[in-house]
Amino acid sequence: MRSSSREPEFQLSYTQVAEKSEIARRFLAERDALNATVEEANNSLLKRFYNIDHNTYLNGELPALQKELQGLAVSAALRCDDCIHYHVIQSFRLGASRASLEETLNVSVVVGGSIVVPHLRRAYALLSELYS
Amino acid sequence: MRSSSREPEFQLSYTQVAEKSEIARRFLAERDALNATVEEANNSLLKRFYNIDHNTYLNGELPALQKELQGLAVSAALRCDDCIHYHVIQSFRLGASRASLEETLNVSVVVGGSIVVPHLRRAYALLSELYS
Amino acid sequence: MRSSSREPEFQLSYTQVAEKSEIARRFLAERDALNATVEEANNSLLKRFYNIDHNTYLNGELPALQKELQGLAVSAALRCDDCIHYHVIQSFRLGASRASLEETLNVSVVVGGSIVVPHLRRAYALLSELYS
Amino acid sequence: MRSSSREPEFQLSYTQVAEKSEIARRFLAERDALNATVEEANNSLLKRFYNIDHNTYLNGELPALQKELQGLAVSAALRCDDCIHYHVIQSFRLGASRASLEETLNVSVVVGGSIVVPHLRRAYALLSELYS
Amino acid sequence: MRSSSREPEFQLSYTQVAEKSEIARRFLAERDALNATVEEANNSLLKRFYNIDHNTYLNGELPALQKELQGLAVSAALRCDDCIHYHVIQSFRLGASRASLEETLNVSVVVGGSIVVPHLRRAYALLSELYS
Amino acid sequence: MRSSSREPEFQLSYTQVAEKSEIARRFLAERDALNATVEEANNSLLKRFYNIDHNTYLNGELPALQKELQGLAVSAALRCDDCIHYHVIQSFRLGASRASLEETLNVSVVVGGSIVVPHLRRAYALLSELYS
Repeated sequence: MRSSSREPEFQLSYTQVAEKSEIARRFLAERDALNATVEEANNSLLKRFYNIDHNTYLNGELPALQKELQGLAVSAALRCDDCIHYHVIQSFRLGASRASLEETLNVSVVVGGSIVVPHLRRAYALLSELYS
Repeated sequence: MRSSSREPEFQLSYTQVAEKSEIARRFLAERDALNATVEEANNSLLKRFYNIDHNTYLNGELPALQKELQGLAVSAALRCDDCIHYHVIQSFRLGASRASLEETLNVSVVVGGSIVVPHLRRAYALLSELYS
Repeated sequence: MRSSSREPEFQLSYTQVAEKSEIARRFLAERDALNATVEEANNSLLKRFYNIDHNTYLNGELPALQKELQGLAVSAALRCDDCIHYHVIQSFRLGASRASLEETLNVSVVVGGSIVVPHLRRAYALLSELYS
Repeated sequence: MRSSSREPEFQLSYTQVAEKSEIARRFLAERDALNATVEEANNSLLKRFYNIDHNTYLNGELPALQKELQGLAVSAALRCDDCIHYHVIQSFRLGASRASLEETLNVSVVVGGSIVVPHLRRAYALLSELYS
Repeated sequence: MRSSSREPEFQLSYTQVAEKSEIARRFLAERDALNATVEEANNSLLKRFYNIDHNTYLNGELPALQKELQGLAVSAALRCDDCIHYHVIQSFRLGASRASLEETLNVSVVVGGSIVVPHLRRAYALLSELYS
Repeated sequence: MRSSSREPEFQLSYTQVAEKSEIARRFLAERDALNATVEEANNSLLKRFYNIDHNTYLNGELPALQKELQGLAVSAALRCDDCIHYHVIQSFRLGASRASLEETLNVSVVVGGSIVVPHLRRAYALLSELYS
């Protein structure tokens, strides 16, 4: 099997995303602050897990964007707001259309049911800011 | 937003899949038998839910195959063997490569953790038969 | 608050249910066999948990049947086949109509999404035998 | 099967509920604001899902209130605060007693375990305001 | 089987924990306020559930600390922030080392996947305050 | 933080466990067969995940047995029969007493609720064979 090892080329930096959306800005700032605490701990097993997690979404047999959208579909179905925000932002940085994000969230709602809807509402608030 | 309304063109029928894989054959036969019982009941709300579910995976902004793979990613992360079997079969019928199915399942394992692994093992048994 | 302490009057015994449905008969037999193993262990905390569980579905402010249906709705949304079988059987023994069971399962599917559907199919197979 | 198509008669408007409870008022205001963003998107599949969701809780074989309580039981067991708030408010508007809501939440805690308790605590805070 | 009935000896009171960590202080204050509302309701079934819950973590065959860590592992895998905070605090009060808490959280992340990571980040923020 | 890198010393081989329990024998045989299919695929990301998973349960700050029990607690709360069987067997091979396994499962039932009970019944069937 082909190795999933090429880093994708992002069209936008995190800073540019944060300038476009206040929801994204706050999410990224809080995530950075908390991740700093985790990195300080320097837990070796956790660092390896973070590394695998990173490699999962690289360009491989499937392009990075398609896997970010899969990550979004799973995150919404599992109702993880932070994960939803993260994968929406990564997909946006990789040039995803708004319609492709909506269709992905539709998969999550149909597979995961109406309990996904509160998370979908918050995801749409982020979409509104990013695609305005 | 563009409507998700075009049926995809499958390259293989269910019968052809069942001839290729014994696991698929048994899954499809049991699914048909149980669905017959549900259809007999003629529950109108359920029929509408089935209809929405069908429309979720049509060609739209994203091609049908990409959404079948999203459905697979979600199904594996939510640990639903029947759903995994179904989306693997649909993806196979739409021409998915084995490597693309493996990368999709990797997303599920990394997002959903080692409790996904028993389901992944059974998915790989199906992959082995379909791609032999 | 009124105490939930009156045992409901079942219209049918387990034996009568088992005579009507082969699916129910096999489920009840396996459940009895496994519960015997648990009882043998005589774990005091577990016995207290079983006791609370029993008391949850007694007649109280709400009639027992209404709470059995709630138990069914939750069990289906949480995708627990054994729990679904159990609450369908208890509801049937308390005189529930087939339509009331279907509406309850509709709540589970809409709240819990399409991953509930494989469990709903198996529940409908049981309904078909019980209400034939 | 009888069709689930009659709208229930609510005894209280959302405005009246918001006047009675600050928790409800804030929840409804935030929900309205976020739903406006979703409605603006005009996603056709999502609109159909919202429509099925609405129809699930109409008067049918089972009265609307009984299904709202089932929705509450499922929501609490699946640990969705927004969903819990919504179904508590709908049940309250349909005349549910406080004791019936508590018994419903007991089903959720016993089926779903102690991880439900933090959500139950927040639900009780809402109950205290609504039934004061 | 030996009865799990001996209360553990905590090395620190809640007040001492709250003085050490602002995150813990806020969590405990909110939890106390909400629990007061629950206790006021005086729901008998719920009181019995709280009682079983309390007894689960007493010294028995396994020492209380080991079971608090198990409670933490489960809470993190099930993604319940309140439960994580509670079991971290109880473990800290029983003298757990920071490394033992990190290893326990590693089990949760590996079994539960990357959706656990946002909760792990918040847990590490609490660890940083408690073990500073 | 101390590295989790020492392999534990198992008191029993898988073969010895399989001779003691028919349930264990069948579980291990099926697991081996399916794992062979996964290994054949030689998916590099998956191999790294398996490796992290293995390292999670080594002797470290906490002894291997304590982490196997944590893995069992999480597996039962997440309702994964294969995972439950695996961690029960590993704990048994490391010399766990039956009472310590029961107390661990009590944590899962109290945290995860009555939907854990069907899995607990099957776990007790395995315990009965292993500790006879």
